[in-house]
Amino acid sequence: MSVLQEININVKNMRETEMTALERQANLIKEMLRQGVKKPYKYVINVSWGDPHSTGVKPLTFVRQVLAACFYPQLMDGNKLPVDVKQRARELLHWCEGGCVGSYTHTPGLTEVIHSIAHFITQRDGGVPADPENIWIHSGSQWSLTNMLRVLVNSDGSPRSGVLMPVPCYSTSHVSVEALGGVVVPYFLDEEHGWELQIEELHRALESAEGVCKPVALYIINPGNPTGHIQSRKSMEEVLRFVWEKKLFLLADEVYQGCVYGEKTPFVSYKKVLSNMGPPLSDMLELASFHSASKGFLGECGLRGGYVELVNIEPDVLKHIYMLFHMDACPPVAGQIALELMVDPPKPGEPSYTLYTNEIRHIQSTLLHNVKKVEKVLNRLPGFSCQPVEGGAFAFPRLHLPPKAIQKAKEVGMKPDTFYCVRLLEDEGVFVSPGCEYGQKEGTYHIRFCIMTTVDTMKELLRRLSSFHLQFMKDFS
Amino acid sequence: MSVLQEININVKNMRETEMTALERQANLIKEMLRQGVKKPYKYVINVSWGDPHSTGVKPLTFVRQVLAACFYPQLMDGNKLPVDVKQRARELLHWCEGGCVGSYTHTPGLTEVIHSIAHFITQRDGGVPADPENIWIHSGSQWSLTNMLRVLVNSDGSPRSGVLMPVPCYSTSHVSVEALGGVVVPYFLDEEHGWELQIEELHRALESAEGVCKPVALYIINPGNPTGHIQSRKSMEEVLRFVWEKKLFLLADEVYQGCVYGEKTPFVSYKKVLSNMGPPLSDMLELASFHSASKGFLGECGLRGGYVELVNIEPDVLKHIYMLFHMDACPPVAGQIALELMVDPPKPGEPSYTLYTNEIRHIQSTLLHNVKKVEKVLNRLPGFSCQPVEGGAFAFPRLHLPPKAIQKAKEVGMKPDTFYCVRLLEDEGVFVSPGCEYGQKEGTYHIRFCIMTTVDTMKELLRRLSSFHLQFMKDFS
Repeated sequence: MSVLQEININVKNMRETEMTALERQANLIKEMLRQGVKKPYKYVINVSWGDPHSTGVKPLTFVRQVLAACFYPQLMDGNKLPVDVKQRARELLHWCEGGCVGSYTHTPGLTEVIHSIAHFITQRDGGVPADPENIWIHSGSQWSLTNMLRVLVNSDGSPRSGVLMPVPCYSTSHVSVEALGGVVVPYFLDEEHGWELQIEELHRALESAEGVCKPVALYIINPGNPTGHIQSRKSMEEVLRFVWEKKLFLLADEVYQGCVYGEKTPFVSYKKVLSNMGPPLSDMLELASFHSASKGFLGECGLRGGYVELVNIEPDVLKHIYMLFHMDACPPVAGQIALELMVDPPKPGEPSYTLYTNEIRHIQSTLLHNVKKVEKVLNRLPGFSCQPVEGGAFAFPRLHLPPKAIQKAKEVGMKPDTFYCVRLLEDEGVFVSPGCEYGQKEGTYHIRFCIMTTVDTMKELLRRLSSFHLQFMKDFS
Repeated sequence: MSVLQEININVKNMRETEMTALERQANLIKEMLRQGVKKPYKYVINVSWGDPHSTGVKPLTFVRQVLAACFYPQLMDGNKLPVDVKQRARELLHWCEGGCVGSYTHTPGLTEVIHSIAHFITQRDGGVPADPENIWIHSGSQWSLTNMLRVLVNSDGSPRSGVLMPVPCYSTSHVSVEALGGVVVPYFLDEEHGWELQIEELHRALESAEGVCKPVALYIINPGNPTGHIQSRKSMEEVLRFVWEKKLFLLADEVYQGCVYGEKTPFVSYKKVLSNMGPPLSDMLELASFHSASKGFLGECGLRGGYVELVNIEPDVLKHIYMLFHMDACPPVAGQIALELMVDPPKPGEPSYTLYTNEIRHIQSTLLHNVKKVEKVLNRLPGFSCQPVEGGAFAFPRLHLPPKAIQKAKEVGMKPDTFYCVRLLEDEGVFVSPGCEYGQKEGTYHIRFCIMTTVDTMKELLRRLSSFHLQFMKDFS
């Protein structure tokens, strides 16, 4: 009887993730705690998302002051806000139609913000120019990834389009491809070598697609989520040559470019490496690079603001991309403001500079401390091994589960690492996500958790995790 | 050579709208004025969008104060903000993870805001209950319409899915269907009867789809965009019976429910009418109703916040919808806050009540004044006829163009009403959109413009439009 029983088959095939049940359980526990039910812990530590503000990391004062002034310009009458905050807010309001953040902007975003982003990219890439016409602000990287996939993936299914995607990988990226009727062609990252991307594996993956689908794009996330690996320049050159030879489109998810820990492996953008390789690649290889205000030191996930830079895309195709982006009118203005402040922060000599710099340094040192602590604690625990976290927002340690635990998980109808996460959540109120959510080599198990927390939260997290883990290993030894 | 030459066929088929060229021209003129080029006008009046803040309508103080306090909570330390603003901001922050608007929320939005929306709907519909589980906050109605269409429209094309859509209609809604590989089945609204929806026309449209596609849904926008018509209860009952008999899904776009001018035709929601019709319809007919903080008296287009209420949808289907919505993480938090304040405004006795009420009344009387003025001025001009604007954000008057103007338009390769709009923009700096953008009966021509402006802007707009129109008619008589 129901009309919606005949639901679009691609949507019907979307996998429900392992997380849904865990999230439900976490909410239940939180509700019980609110109602005064006694547990061995007073609150749940949720590190299942990359969401620094939710775990107590403070937003940047300058960003929030400018946002507040833009929303309620009367605040600028008093002397509560620094002069440069007022100046930036006035400038931003001047860019908005009617001088008001409540107005729609152009579909690709405020022209002036796009120019600031182009300037930021050019500086980042040591002078490789960025054309504002190729930059599109959006409400989040998953949104724009999905829209780029809508252009790339042939939805009428003859032949089905394939997208090479890493394993492990944030599951929504896989789901995006499948929901459009595309095929995910998995390539495995090499855990034993710090989650490196091996070029032979890309070749293997591409061959595996023969007779199944027509590969049209390669998706890469660097710095890695969940792996924390940062690609070397050599590896990126190999990837670019592969993309070129195989006539693929490169989807370069670079949202964690601001999150780098240590100086051994700096972040270099795919666009910069491409540019250095010279023609014909630098003039013709098509790529999209994604960035976001949710990640990095801003951590403004709730504002919904990111951008994509399109490289070597023909104007005719850009027209179609415009139409797709145009369907949602415009990106959230608060997110656009956050982006502007991210790419053009206070400069030396300006009133907000010192505080801004101190806050950034504090976050940087906190994250560096967390990363070191995580690696040290986990690698000392029996049954845990953690690759170096060079960048990104997550640790993705491997769990060497005892056979009895695997057996028990089977009995209760769960995947082994989900079973581990469920128990950790129940026993210690720590919400991490299981490796099976991201994909992993058969017979290996992992957990993922966000390292963007305060020092105190990380200390408490590691205390609870260690205590749980030792007991768990004992119980199933 | 280009990978993207093999662009998804449905995306490739997306029609570029008439607006693109007009927008480019408007931007050019604005740039020329900025550079000091002399024109017969000092600024462009852009009423081509439903965007009140861009044309000088002031945002509501209460809404902006709460937003500012949420973004920069330190503002609450002083005495600059009313007590109830601080209280609402504290409450909202308490609902956010980590007490911070920078955190992600649940995919359907903040639980407490959803409960407020459910309460609002229940009150609006005279007690017909709304279940929070069926309410989903999103970043804008077009976004959620597209996602509902992704569930409904069979993208593998066998048979192609059809969606009955009005003519005239906001063009993006048509484009959304086509970009998914669906077929738009047009039904024409009856201009001579104030843009009423005639049930016979729906039957005709459905029959016309035979052999072309399988109609799965009916899309209705009430109050109308661009028509300004408000449906009668009798008409809505006819529509619901039709939807039921023909086993369709009802997409009820009700974003202009807060914009009603005059008491002759109040807004009634489809859900309420459905509920009054009793079983089996009230228990089983599936519908989605869209609302938004962009429209109505809030006019917060830039914040990107709306909600959809799903009625009689089975839990199994809701699970798939969750997955689709989940791909974009969560709706913008600023938009969620705006929604909360829209559905739960200050109450009598609270410090902000008087100002809030006065501001709303001021906007209401402004719009009522504008509507009356528009109808009076346009219906007096030769070659213009304007149906009553009962609701919504737009006037959509008919243009009776002289044959010479139509001939001239043909010569320059433009549709006649686009030609009119281009000239109006060039000569008088008034940016309205042409009827062909929305669809219209063969041989009829219209323009659409937003009536949500200040009184002064409307006065100037009508002055410029009248002056241009008389000259235009004279030139081509």
